[in-house]
Amino acid sequence: MGAAAAEQQHQHPYVPRDLHLPDYVPCFLSQREIVLPYLVASLLLVTLIWLLSGRCSTITKTDRLLMCWWAFTGLTHIILEGYFAFTPEFYKEKTPHYLAEVWKEYSKSDSRYVSRDAAVVTAEGITAAIEGPACLLAVFAIASRKSYSYILQFAICLGQLYGCLVYFITAYLDGDNFSISPFYYWAYYIGANSPWVVIPNLIAIRSWKKICAAFQAEKKMKTR
Amino acid sequence: MGAAAAEQQHQHPYVPRDLHLPDYVPCFLSQREIVLPYLVASLLLVTLIWLLSGRCSTITKTDRLLMCWWAFTGLTHIILEGYFAFTPEFYKEKTPHYLAEVWKEYSKSDSRYVSRDAAVVTAEGITAAIEGPACLLAVFAIASRKSYSYILQFAICLGQLYGCLVYFITAYLDGDNFSISPFYYWAYYIGANSPWVVIPNLIAIRSWKKICAAFQAEKKMKTR
Repeated sequence: MGAAAAEQQHQHPYVPRDLHLPDYVPCFLSQREIVLPYLVASLLLVTLIWLLSGRCSTITKTDRLLMCWWAFTGLTHIILEGYFAFTPEFYKEKTPHYLAEVWKEYSKSDSRYVSRDAAVVTAEGITAAIEGPACLLAVFAIASRKSYSYILQFAICLGQLYGCLVYFITAYLDGDNFSISPFYYWAYYIGANSPWVVIPNLIAIRSWKKICAAFQAEKKMKTR
Repeated sequence: MGAAAAEQQHQHPYVPRDLHLPDYVPCFLSQREIVLPYLVASLLLVTLIWLLSGRCSTITKTDRLLMCWWAFTGLTHIILEGYFAFTPEFYKEKTPHYLAEVWKEYSKSDSRYVSRDAAVVTAEGITAAIEGPACLLAVFAIASRKSYSYILQFAICLGQLYGCLVYFITAYLDGDNFSISPFYYWAYYIGANSPWVVIPNLIAIRSWKKICAAFQAEKKMKTR
């Protein structure tokens, strides 16, 4: 085989091994070079939102924390997941494009990303296009104490939880064999996704309670 | 080919034609015999709920209509969709089992039911196991004016809408070629599903407005 042909036929690392990925180009960045910038950028964003929201004395600490979460998860949905949902050929990217690298790396834990599984693309597309902008609206709604603040947060949480259910159940039904190693399975597939199971559950329960309390207060007022 | 072998190798009517369905047994009932009992049973249920709820003078007509809808959609989710989600081999059913017939017939408009597509099974499973019982709880919540009535209805609507998005987008991404004819495509795939797009949208908007109004009332009360 000539050098040119060999260059076009990079062997991919993904499972199942017989996955056909023509023109696949391997990762340029190391795991550290991919994960660290995401963590640092997220930390900077959270710090910024925390400090900015602190200048307004009427916002409670819980609400400030929620604003940090919604800004972080909203930008993750729009930038990271938005790139994946609308870039079918990211694995052919010939330059060290950061977002393509993220998904080449993540696909090691779930090759359905690189093989463009319809359920994964659908869940990510809904998350990026609907929930992403809604998260940023939630930051604004909390800061400006809108009456729709809790119902909006509740709606986004349900969307995130439904997305996780679709994501994990379809993988299970399709054989749950998309990860190159237990490390990737537990670190990325389970570990990196678990905040989006735990936190939306907590926020959804809180919003549910706040909404019920508002109706109870309204009822009390009417019966007075 | 012997008679016995021929009996085991019924040709299925579904699209794509090369779909492999060993031990498939054709429909026993006609389209009319399948659709009519569902419509009649639903009409009876709705009439029953309407009459029963009318005996309580404090329930508004809108709430009575909503109770009818939640009872109808809840039992559809639990019985029809529940049977599908947890009966992988319904297309092999050798007797005129009504629920198996329903899905043998519906699969003519979407063969992903008979081929057990993971996204369809997941969406139907969530609908049957979570939303179905929640719908029946909504009937009770409306009747007994629970403070969680609107947020519960809102949550179910979002679940139904997310399910529809997953259902239609995955079909589109996978080529949208699962129906045996334009009649089945428009009558079942589009027509029969459209109430679950239109009605949850209407109820979700109504619930959203009611919840916002409750918070506005609470705010007004506090600032008095």
